[in-house]
Amino acid sequence: MSDQFKTIGLIGRYTRSTDLIDATLTALHGFLLKRGKNVIMDRGSAEQLSLGNSTLCERNELGQRCDLVIVVGGDGSLLTAARAVVECDIPILGINRGHLGFLTDIHPDDFEKEVDAVLAGEYMEEQRFLLTTSIHDNGKSEIMGDALNDVVLTPGGDPHMIEFETYINDQFVCRQRADGLIVATPTGSTAYALSGGGPILDPNLDALVLVPMFPHTLSSRPIVVNGNHEIKIVISENNQVTPQISADGQNRRLVNKGCEIHIRKKDKRLRLIHPKNHNFFSVLRDKLGWETKLTP
Amino acid sequence: MSDQFKTIGLIGRYTRSTDLIDATLTALHGFLLKRGKNVIMDRGSAEQLSLGNSTLCERNELGQRCDLVIVVGGDGSLLTAARAVVECDIPILGINRGHLGFLTDIHPDDFEKEVDAVLAGEYMEEQRFLLTTSIHDNGKSEIMGDALNDVVLTPGGDPHMIEFETYINDQFVCRQRADGLIVATPTGSTAYALSGGGPILDPNLDALVLVPMFPHTLSSRPIVVNGNHEIKIVISENNQVTPQISADGQNRRLVNKGCEIHIRKKDKRLRLIHPKNHNFFSVLRDKLGWETKLTP
Amino acid sequence: MSDQFKTIGLIGRYTRSTDLIDATLTALHGFLLKRGKNVIMDRGSAEQLSLGNSTLCERNELGQRCDLVIVVGGDGSLLTAARAVVECDIPILGINRGHLGFLTDIHPDDFEKEVDAVLAGEYMEEQRFLLTTSIHDNGKSEIMGDALNDVVLTPGGDPHMIEFETYINDQFVCRQRADGLIVATPTGSTAYALSGGGPILDPNLDALVLVPMFPHTLSSRPIVVNGNHEIKIVISENNQVTPQISADGQNRRLVNKGCEIHIRKKDKRLRLIHPKNHNFFSVLRDKLGWETKLTP
Amino acid sequence: MSDQFKTIGLIGRYTRSTDLIDATLTALHGFLLKRGKNVIMDRGSAEQLSLGNSTLCERNELGQRCDLVIVVGGDGSLLTAARAVVECDIPILGINRGHLGFLTDIHPDDFEKEVDAVLAGEYMEEQRFLLTTSIHDNGKSEIMGDALNDVVLTPGGDPHMIEFETYINDQFVCRQRADGLIVATPTGSTAYALSGGGPILDPNLDALVLVPMFPHTLSSRPIVVNGNHEIKIVISENNQVTPQISADGQNRRLVNKGCEIHIRKKDKRLRLIHPKNHNFFSVLRDKLGWETKLTP
Repeated sequence: MSDQFKTIGLIGRYTRSTDLIDATLTALHGFLLKRGKNVIMDRGSAEQLSLGNSTLCERNELGQRCDLVIVVGGDGSLLTAARAVVECDIPILGINRGHLGFLTDIHPDDFEKEVDAVLAGEYMEEQRFLLTTSIHDNGKSEIMGDALNDVVLTPGGDPHMIEFETYINDQFVCRQRADGLIVATPTGSTAYALSGGGPILDPNLDALVLVPMFPHTLSSRPIVVNGNHEIKIVISENNQVTPQISADGQNRRLVNKGCEIHIRKKDKRLRLIHPKNHNFFSVLRDKLGWETKLTP
Repeated sequence: MSDQFKTIGLIGRYTRSTDLIDATLTALHGFLLKRGKNVIMDRGSAEQLSLGNSTLCERNELGQRCDLVIVVGGDGSLLTAARAVVECDIPILGINRGHLGFLTDIHPDDFEKEVDAVLAGEYMEEQRFLLTTSIHDNGKSEIMGDALNDVVLTPGGDPHMIEFETYINDQFVCRQRADGLIVATPTGSTAYALSGGGPILDPNLDALVLVPMFPHTLSSRPIVVNGNHEIKIVISENNQVTPQISADGQNRRLVNKGCEIHIRKKDKRLRLIHPKNHNFFSVLRDKLGWETKLTP
Repeated sequence: MSDQFKTIGLIGRYTRSTDLIDATLTALHGFLLKRGKNVIMDRGSAEQLSLGNSTLCERNELGQRCDLVIVVGGDGSLLTAARAVVECDIPILGINRGHLGFLTDIHPDDFEKEVDAVLAGEYMEEQRFLLTTSIHDNGKSEIMGDALNDVVLTPGGDPHMIEFETYINDQFVCRQRADGLIVATPTGSTAYALSGGGPILDPNLDALVLVPMFPHTLSSRPIVVNGNHEIKIVISENNQVTPQISADGQNRRLVNKGCEIHIRKKDKRLRLIHPKNHNFFSVLRDKLGWETKLTP
Repeated sequence: MSDQFKTIGLIGRYTRSTDLIDATLTALHGFLLKRGKNVIMDRGSAEQLSLGNSTLCERNELGQRCDLVIVVGGDGSLLTAARAVVECDIPILGINRGHLGFLTDIHPDDFEKEVDAVLAGEYMEEQRFLLTTSIHDNGKSEIMGDALNDVVLTPGGDPHMIEFETYINDQFVCRQRADGLIVATPTGSTAYALSGGGPILDPNLDALVLVPMFPHTLSSRPIVVNGNHEIKIVISENNQVTPQISADGQNRRLVNKGCEIHIRKKDKRLRLIHPKNHNFFSVLRDKLGWETKLTP
């Protein structure tokens, strides 16, 4: 067994845990102790578990204390965990206990075998980039939380078409009225952006996709640009509602008329771990019901 | 005036020229002679013109004899010219006399001023990549013509759903029944692929997009992959028609059951010249009727 | 001049009137008085005007006191007016001072000629149906305001996928997770539903269209059903947010878990008046930028 | 057992029958004889079977000689059979041995029980309308075969954008360049038109849908019109290829420049028989993979 992962952090679903998540967390906790690992539980995830005298810490300290973090839950749980550990450059592994599993691709029934392989150094590591967003409002600037999936502009509480201008690397793209705009990473291209009519981006493509939501101009289309380009959204003076912006569906913030939102690639990447036999297109086929064999 | 463009080749629309194209070609021919340039006409484009004793040559020799080629026509004319000169690494400039003008972006009424600027060295040069396609059928291989826009698989003469498998860098993506598949470059993403529901790719993005045509599986979506990835299409044994493949709408070829089609980036790039003030998004707004100013 | 329209009501934009609307309202007011008509202004619309001692009344009394109501504004203004007068079975005419004009199709510059024609009995009358919505929550029922365009289910303040079941004439259609659902009339099919990917319904088609918004299941599609069918939406117990429902973007109301929303055609129709030469497809071509002549 | 179906016709797949179809046809043939029915086989379908001295006739005579026709195959087989019997006003029943089964909804494993129920008078009968198409070319008129699904205009052998004008009840809709146009019945709305982005029409809606194929104008959208409206397509003079028209994918015919294609509802309806428990939305859910139960 390789020695690179001595201390392992465990995270479950942050809110609304389920019996299945709890059972897998408990089993995994015991399994790792038996393998001689130091195990540190995210305090929030441990609340409903009876793990005896296990070591606990705050989620955002896990990165500093662990060599590996394992998340039990759905892709949403992994998103939250990823934002918490990305600064510390430690890898993350997901065990699927939710709806879709593009990020959490270990089946809970197989976790012993799969986690053993990872501990033995047999795994694939992918680098996924995140988005960092800053909001410039009347001379003041503010940094929003990171996004592994997407940054989304919406009308906020009172559904209403909103108006905004988009710029790519300071080049004006268009001014539009729409329900909003999704700016997604390749990771996010199979999440919300896909429901909105966006294309699937290969996970290792260095690109962003801008997907207009219910655009008033019917010839609007998703635009895919270089991952190093900066996206700027300017909130129009004509809006009758105050739009809001969110990162991975979290950190909602109102953006006033005249606000500028700057979105660009974060310097630090997420280190995402998969089993050796992981295959993006296989997950895609499975999740989207694509056919593999056709009969006459 | 810069001296880099001493000999200039002229090309019009290959088939079905129009009076407007002919008038612009004639005017441009005279204008360049007055500027002291050697001018060589594409023989096919010169047929309907009365240019006196002008120098003519075959289109595919223009690249070897010229420092610059100017095309008068639509994007389709430029596609054809581009495939003829790309091997020689000489730049190409388009004067628009057709429908859409993503590639041919000089207005015919302004050509004197714009061409003078280019001759003086004031221009933008873009590198656009092309696709090279090989067909492997029962042990024999064959190279198709290059494509600046797209390689398209269709049912051929007898419209009928066809069946094929797609691979990206030898990873199986899916097996599907559809009217066909478009594999487009960023240049081609604003052409046929856009009508088919594909996203717009920024022209300098190093990526390809695969757009399924009328797919039987409703969850099929366009996929954007790294421009260096090789796309492989395998024609299924179940087909009741013999599909055909084409490059930029040309060079149609039947592909039998069991055929493999390999599509990858060509080594040589096209050197495409634009006026200094060229702006992709401005062309896009203009062509797609996107709004720039909205009124309350 | 025909005598059928003796008393005429005038309505402008309810909120945020503009100078242009006010100018047209004032001119129209004078014009109708000169034609010997009794003119009654909607009190809300008259506030910013100086019309001397004009007759005013509340908007929802206009229907009882007038033979015709003229709306100056955009389609949104006409929607609001329509809901106010539909019970009284009096016709409504729109003069366009807004964005889109599917309903308000008289150009303000031509209003004298066009209104004169209408007063002389030269016009087309269309019947447009509305939707009536009732909400059944834990034994209590409540009727919402009418909708000429659409009834829309959304996540409300906190954007989040919602879950619901749809029934058509009590036949179960599906259970889905989505951003929401639009149930639109033919009138509404060219409004919000069109941005959402819905088809255009001919205005006199007796049908409804259900358009899922950003559905999680990618094979979801708009469904067009008989206009006499009742649509039932049941809010799932799994929702983590409380969705809301609105009629023509107004009358928002929260709908709790377990709520049933029943949507069906209202008995009373709106009598919508157009100039004799009105043509739906001509408006469509104009608004959507469809081509009428193509050149080679 | 009800006596209304004394003589029953049997049809398989017209071309490329399969062992499974043949087996079901043979079993069904024996089963009906045992039930005391007169059974007449379609001569084309009987060729590969060894049914002893069974009664044969041409497919298009089956309608005159039978009280009921049973088709074994996929929806394509039923389409072909439907066009053959619709004139005679006899009902048709489908046993599914193909891909999709919107029309052929009896499972081959259950056919004895299901067919017995139908023979006993326990079934649902639906009326599905067909389209009749006439082509007017330079003074000559010609009637095409009927279509239960759709009439489709395509570029024919040489894929190329085509140009045409569309009229609805003699009102000009638009002139467009596209890969073609699908005019579909509600029955056809779940077939080819669905792959092309058309909406699902409830089977008993009296409406047609026009779906543009890969339209050059990006704001083109499917249009749903009253089923009694006549659709007229005029082939533009600008075409460089000769488009072709087909009905249910059959009866292809070239349509020259200037040709007018008139499409309208056929007077005679198809009588389509389903088991008592048939439910359109249930088939839809099954075929499109729509969810019925969602888990948190």
